[in-house]
Amino acid sequence: MTSRATISVDAMGGDHGPSVVVEGIAQLTRKRPDAARYLLHGRESEIAPLLAQYPDAAAICEIRHSDTHVTMSDKPSEALRRSRGSSMWNAITSVRDGEATAALSAGNTGALMAISKVLLRTMKNVHRPAIAASWPTVKGYCVVLDVGATVEAQPRQLVEFAIMGAAFHRAVHSSTQPRVGLLNVGAEDVKGNDTVREADELIRRAGLDLNYIGYVEGNDISLGASDVVVTDGFTGNVALKTAEGTARLVAAWVREALTSDLRAKLGALLSAHALKQLRARMDPNNVNGGVFLGLNGAVVKSHGGADADGLASALGVALDIARSDFQNQVSANLDQLEKRVEAEDEAPAPQPAEAAS
Amino acid sequence: MTSRATISVDAMGGDHGPSVVVEGIAQLTRKRPDAARYLLHGRESEIAPLLAQYPDAAAICEIRHSDTHVTMSDKPSEALRRSRGSSMWNAITSVRDGEATAALSAGNTGALMAISKVLLRTMKNVHRPAIAASWPTVKGYCVVLDVGATVEAQPRQLVEFAIMGAAFHRAVHSSTQPRVGLLNVGAEDVKGNDTVREADELIRRAGLDLNYIGYVEGNDISLGASDVVVTDGFTGNVALKTAEGTARLVAAWVREALTSDLRAKLGALLSAHALKQLRARMDPNNVNGGVFLGLNGAVVKSHGGADADGLASALGVALDIARSDFQNQVSANLDQLEKRVEAEDEAPAPQPAEAAS
Repeated sequence: MTSRATISVDAMGGDHGPSVVVEGIAQLTRKRPDAARYLLHGRESEIAPLLAQYPDAAAICEIRHSDTHVTMSDKPSEALRRSRGSSMWNAITSVRDGEATAALSAGNTGALMAISKVLLRTMKNVHRPAIAASWPTVKGYCVVLDVGATVEAQPRQLVEFAIMGAAFHRAVHSSTQPRVGLLNVGAEDVKGNDTVREADELIRRAGLDLNYIGYVEGNDISLGASDVVVTDGFTGNVALKTAEGTARLVAAWVREALTSDLRAKLGALLSAHALKQLRARMDPNNVNGGVFLGLNGAVVKSHGGADADGLASALGVALDIARSDFQNQVSANLDQLEKRVEAEDEAPAPQPAEAAS
Repeated sequence: MTSRATISVDAMGGDHGPSVVVEGIAQLTRKRPDAARYLLHGRESEIAPLLAQYPDAAAICEIRHSDTHVTMSDKPSEALRRSRGSSMWNAITSVRDGEATAALSAGNTGALMAISKVLLRTMKNVHRPAIAASWPTVKGYCVVLDVGATVEAQPRQLVEFAIMGAAFHRAVHSSTQPRVGLLNVGAEDVKGNDTVREADELIRRAGLDLNYIGYVEGNDISLGASDVVVTDGFTGNVALKTAEGTARLVAAWVREALTSDLRAKLGALLSAHALKQLRARMDPNNVNGGVFLGLNGAVVKSHGGADADGLASALGVALDIARSDFQNQVSANLDQLEKRVEAEDEAPAPQPAEAAS
């Protein structure tokens, strides 16, 4: 695809509002000048002067005014009732109406998911959406899903997540046959709970176009033992947050060690350039953006506290999906899964004669 | 308690067998000379010459010969059938028979759990055992349980884990009123699944002697926001392994940064003493030992690959529990929980007259 993809943006979301959004767009425009155009939803009087500072970005942005926006403290159910006409609502509406291929917001996650589900609806043959997150690993990036949309997932839903995660890894991390693993508490067949074991069996016999490698464990994520790690929204959310907490703890320890006395401080001063690169590598903005998958259109949720770097990175993810064959790849595998499940549901019990032959 | 506690040790378990076990005992004996005596189960011809090198340790060890031992590759079910008379079996038997207060093995985890359950049985009012692990945090140590014994836990079982985790934190980390949190995907009441929400309600109304602080999230573990974090064995195992993997990844990045060029290497050389302390702090041997809780006697599982430092640390945990009031504290709270649940089960539906009064 060589034409520009249109990304619809809620310019009022997040802790910093339109300033960070506009700066993020300007940044990404410098990096990928011909890739996108943007619909910016929000208060025109705030957005226009900001945009005027970046003529290259302004040339590919269209402001769509909205009077209201969803706040971070709105509960999802309230937000849904009151959000019609808000910048978030309108940003998703642009995707629903085919004006944009993907949407981005740094606003309230629960409200964004609720509005996205109502306006976009789940794809055919998808039962529940998932949020995918990209984690840095020893080898590259691992996509973990679900990290919070569907806290209790049935076996078939886990298989749907596997299909979407693989297509997502292809689209965003440019892999060809990403390895897909199912998160479990051990590699042996007997481990885990019924849901995980049934998902493992279904994924093996469904005849999908999928590079499934079986069970993986928590430490396999950072090791890069699998490119996609599939789990329910409860476990995935706990794993993601536990990893964030651990990374912060180790970073704090490193800082403490390198400021513990004068000699350590001198050493750190000498290594300052390398430590700066390390900080850049550990910057959560690098992999900003949880992506809602399984809806009729991609929605990227940027962290509320993301800076312009982080916002540009999340916009890049939206753009990668918008320009990829994501929906078609997913649809083909979902159709195959549906056929297989239907065939099994309708299959008569095996005939004794057949069994003997 | 001032008398020596007796610890029963499977001397043949782990990757290194009796040499590491004996050295670990010698180490702990130097640190805590009057705290323990040991029953060493295993091949006498291997253990005796090793023990002869450490007269102080030898004076408080008694070798109990066994011809066989469970190997790391034995499946739990097979191990259980074939393990009678093995060093692992006999180590647990010493606890069952009251000769020792706690047991330690660095052997096959599944086999150790199976044998422990059969020989020790669960405590009164405990439905399933849990494995507790201590994690370093910004502030001290957080006890997470279950990390693998009970992959699917009912609400009441989670409350039992909370009770055991609090008593464990007191015994091993010398706290007085450890804060107990329930692992969830958000702090709001509406978050999570039914099991977690029901456990939260039960723990609040059960009238336990417990400092319950409500829901916590994955990042709260490393932050030290709670002293005890309660979850089922699936999520706990994934969280533990994810944290291990993340810590290893960040450590690898730090190493890479500090060897990236000559200046960085010189800086690291100057900071070498601080980095050495950092390594010591991150050494998994510091918090070696998953502890099986909820059985009639404590069983500590040391990592199979632990060195003498790690084994000494795991033995220290066994000793802390053996010398503590763990079983009594737990029993009192479990009795209270049982009373409460029974009362609720028997309570007649509220009378209209009463409800109106």
